[in-house]
Amino acid sequence: MRVSLLALSAMTLIAAAPPAKPLTPSEIVKAAPASAWRTIDPTDLMVIDLKNGGRVIVQLAPVFAPVHVANLRALAKGGWWSGAAVYRVQDNYVAQWGNNETTKPIPADVVAKPPAEYERPLRGLAIRPLGSPDAYTPRAGFTMGWPVAYDPKGRTANLPHCYGSVGVGRDLSPDTGMGGELYAAIGHAPRHLDRVIAVVGRVIEGIEQLSALPRGTEALGFYKERTSDVPIARVTLAADLPAGERPSFQYMDTESPSFAAYVKGRANRQDDFFIRPAGGVDLCNAPVPVRRVPAK
Amino acid sequence: MRVSLLALSAMTLIAAAPPAKPLTPSEIVKAAPASAWRTIDPTDLMVIDLKNGGRVIVQLAPVFAPVHVANLRALAKGGWWSGAAVYRVQDNYVAQWGNNETTKPIPADVVAKPPAEYERPLRGLAIRPLGSPDAYTPRAGFTMGWPVAYDPKGRTANLPHCYGSVGVGRDLSPDTGMGGELYAAIGHAPRHLDRVIAVVGRVIEGIEQLSALPRGTEALGFYKERTSDVPIARVTLAADLPAGERPSFQYMDTESPSFAAYVKGRANRQDDFFIRPAGGVDLCNAPVPVRRVPAK
Repeated sequence: MRVSLLALSAMTLIAAAPPAKPLTPSEIVKAAPASAWRTIDPTDLMVIDLKNGGRVIVQLAPVFAPVHVANLRALAKGGWWSGAAVYRVQDNYVAQWGNNETTKPIPADVVAKPPAEYERPLRGLAIRPLGSPDAYTPRAGFTMGWPVAYDPKGRTANLPHCYGSVGVGRDLSPDTGMGGELYAAIGHAPRHLDRVIAVVGRVIEGIEQLSALPRGTEALGFYKERTSDVPIARVTLAADLPAGERPSFQYMDTESPSFAAYVKGRANRQDDFFIRPAGGVDLCNAPVPVRRVPAK
Repeated sequence: MRVSLLALSAMTLIAAAPPAKPLTPSEIVKAAPASAWRTIDPTDLMVIDLKNGGRVIVQLAPVFAPVHVANLRALAKGGWWSGAAVYRVQDNYVAQWGNNETTKPIPADVVAKPPAEYERPLRGLAIRPLGSPDAYTPRAGFTMGWPVAYDPKGRTANLPHCYGSVGVGRDLSPDTGMGGELYAAIGHAPRHLDRVIAVVGRVIEGIEQLSALPRGTEALGFYKERTSDVPIARVTLAADLPAGERPSFQYMDTESPSFAAYVKGRANRQDDFFIRPAGGVDLCNAPVPVRRVPAK
């Protein structure tokens, strides 16, 4: 059928307005109302200051690893981190820090042999399903601001290893690590570590202070020389910083309509650049939005 | 039942030898016979030398993006890369290089507007299935040494964006990029870019020359100052290097029994450290083994 230009113009004029362009995931985050955000408790914020001036902020996950998180708080208060350093950076895997190979005494109120805490009961968790399949667990979704992998039959749930996830270094099982050696994932999600190591939190600001470090040349990315280590100046809970210096963050409520729209948008990118929505997204490619608490 | 130590010893003596401990994925790779390896054609190796002395080697994928790969070869031969630089490093996303914002003329034998080449017909590809679900495509597997995502109904196949994958920067569609601006994924697999951009290869050595660079502070990780750019000295096909200087690589034949054992091992880690095999692995967490051709 041929349509003259004039007829087409007339049709255009009387047609309804075109459907509104869907918001992009980042536009959804920007437009989310205050009610979609939850402020993170300052006792759940571990502030790592490097001697080079860099700062890494970790949100702790007491709902998943309460004993390990209690240890992390005690280690920060007990001075464990003075003299510690980042001593291992393995490309596409992890950056690791602590007091490796030292005989530093463990602060008195740290549990030397915590329970595994690799997973927890599914019961008690309200989960928003991801809606896409997962290669590692029967189901994947989000709960209380965290990504979560879960097994309805086994009735267990665990924090997945995504980019920025923080886990507890350990020796061979049954050692579970007391929390004095930590790592952050700095490459493709090492999900094979799920349920094998305690995940205790995630880096919410400053991951580039770890991910852009020179890679170690020894096996597993350990630095060869101690002079390559990146010294830590101090580790403090945000709650223990003076009010004026205390960083404050919010995560998006994973039960909120904004978050549902965000995940849908991540799975179906419709920005001008994305000519073909995938129709799916993997658990670690839909990171829960986190932001600094906006000025009032 | 109580068993005396003596009886137990006797039982031990007559018992069959315990089952051999399964090899770890890296042990499987080390033990793979010469027949499990395929040498990469030197015209498929793009050698990127940075002025800081770093070298990045990219294996090209002409089976998936023949016109773009022909362009990359022509750009290397035509001097496109003199004066080019890495000008964008976005954390957990990409490092990008080229002659951004210059008016450098395109070498004559470069196709200025290549076809999309975001996917190819499934027909003609022998695929080893991954055996685990994929969040982005109906099926995932491996073919000719590459990870591949595919849709049996649509009869299409595409290279996925995994860590180290190299894609062609472009403007908004229908532009497909001529190959003069490239990026490598340096974070969690940005699979939402699959079938939206032409993937033309993967970094097989030296990814840390890109992934450990300082992150750009401008939007999308662009460096603010041109003095932050990381200049490229030259880009050469391995085939055009003198024989004595030519790097030579092999990938593991994805049809080989060794590769089947490797993928199974990645999905079911049984090293002493891994107390619980996942029973699955995602496409980008089972990278096809690549090695330097061993000395004879």
